[in-house]
Amino acid sequence: MNPCPTGIGATAWVIADGYIPPRSCGPEPEMTSHDSICMLNAGDTRARVEVYVYFTDREPAGPFVLAIAPRRAFHQRINDLDGPEHIPVGTDYCLLVTSDVPIVVQHTRLDSRQEANALMSTIAFPG
Amino acid sequence: MNPCPTGIGATAWVIADGYIPPRSCGPEPEMTSHDSICMLNAGDTRARVEVYVYFTDREPAGPFVLAIAPRRAFHQRINDLDGPEHIPVGTDYCLLVTSDVPIVVQHTRLDSRQEANALMSTIAFPG
Amino acid sequence: MNPCPTGIGATAWVIADGYIPPRSCGPEPEMTSHDSICMLNAGDTRARVEVYVYFTDREPAGPFVLAIAPRRAFHQRINDLDGPEHIPVGTDYCLLVTSDVPIVVQHTRLDSRQEANALMSTIAFPG
Amino acid sequence: MNPCPTGIGATAWVIADGYIPPRSCGPEPEMTSHDSICMLNAGDTRARVEVYVYFTDREPAGPFVLAIAPRRAFHQRINDLDGPEHIPVGTDYCLLVTSDVPIVVQHTRLDSRQEANALMSTIAFPG
Repeated sequence: MNPCPTGIGATAWVIADGYIPPRSCGPEPEMTSHDSICMLNAGDTRARVEVYVYFTDREPAGPFVLAIAPRRAFHQRINDLDGPEHIPVGTDYCLLVTSDVPIVVQHTRLDSRQEANALMSTIAFPG
Repeated sequence: MNPCPTGIGATAWVIADGYIPPRSCGPEPEMTSHDSICMLNAGDTRARVEVYVYFTDREPAGPFVLAIAPRRAFHQRINDLDGPEHIPVGTDYCLLVTSDVPIVVQHTRLDSRQEANALMSTIAFPG
Repeated sequence: MNPCPTGIGATAWVIADGYIPPRSCGPEPEMTSHDSICMLNAGDTRARVEVYVYFTDREPAGPFVLAIAPRRAFHQRINDLDGPEHIPVGTDYCLLVTSDVPIVVQHTRLDSRQEANALMSTIAFPG
Repeated sequence: MNPCPTGIGATAWVIADGYIPPRSCGPEPEMTSHDSICMLNAGDTRARVEVYVYFTDREPAGPFVLAIAPRRAFHQRINDLDGPEHIPVGTDYCLLVTSDVPIVVQHTRLDSRQEANALMSTIAFPG
């Protein structure tokens, strides 16, 4: 039944424009400003995902370790990463996402600093 | 006259950030919040397209089967998929789109939860 | 002095989500709702570009023929294409852009139907 | 400890839709309308980056030379480039970004000409 038993995608992905807007308008948590990595593990094997966060003025943070079950979507707000550290708002960063099986990564930001929210999204760069 | 008689694109595409915003401002259906897959079949052969929807907490839904005539655009709101099931709003999902001939897939969301609409778009990931 | 004398990019590009929003808020022409193809010809040879427009219910229109001088940017609003025909607003379409030399194509929409404008952009799919 | 000691990405990148919106709403510099190139140098070698700016009606400007330290993010507003010249607002342009080591480039615009800001973003085209 699975159309992609061995998965689809790549095992390394980069997002270069990371930024969590520091203010929000509208009901939490739905309209809270956030940066997200949206991932698909289409294959039949559990994915072990590691996220590294690069900053402008210090060594990278991470890895933040996530697990994605087979045939599952996994949307992770960067705001909510909390181990080994918390990513600060209002700070420029980049992300490297690695996985032991192929996944696909898309980057999306919701910015509700002003009264109507703005959105941006792109498929990440597959390395 | 057809500049691409054998088509252009790929036969598998992934969108990782699927989400239909659960509210809308403005006249329906034009300004209704929606997630869309926009597809081009540039070739001279009819495309049989299958859409699989992956969730965070259950097995995938689908395939939703679509047909795209030769040399035609086909923009499908995910809101409007209704067989074998309806995709719920306010729910994280991912999409796998397969085709028996090359097509191109672009993912676009219109979010009109707040007073002025937001847009995001990306070419999907070709597998 | 030219860092790319032979150009950079591809000779066929696809945009699958074409749509010119049928209304606008704000001063014309700057804030007029539009769909654009933004192109770079980085090489030292003039580019002959052909744009084909695919619809959901009729045969494609075009080619619309454009010329891009060497080492030049060229941003074309689809609203302003006028030969061999005019692209209607409020209509789903896809675009195929071909060139005799490598170019890069990015697709951007400004939607000012509601009071604050929305934007979306993606690098097109290189064929 | 570095998951990508030799870096990840490409050594040439193109952004075709460059434009700095000529007006802004909201507090400076956070909400100032801008075009940005967001870059990651994930490797262990300093990157020398050159940015060339292409216009519609004159020869390219640049190179603007930037340095990205190893394992660092670097987000550069085009508004703030000031040598060898300043990029005018309200003007169509394209960008070519070259690097002597692999980097990843993402293009993002914040447009706050109207009361609520709009955003767009895409991974640039790797050449």
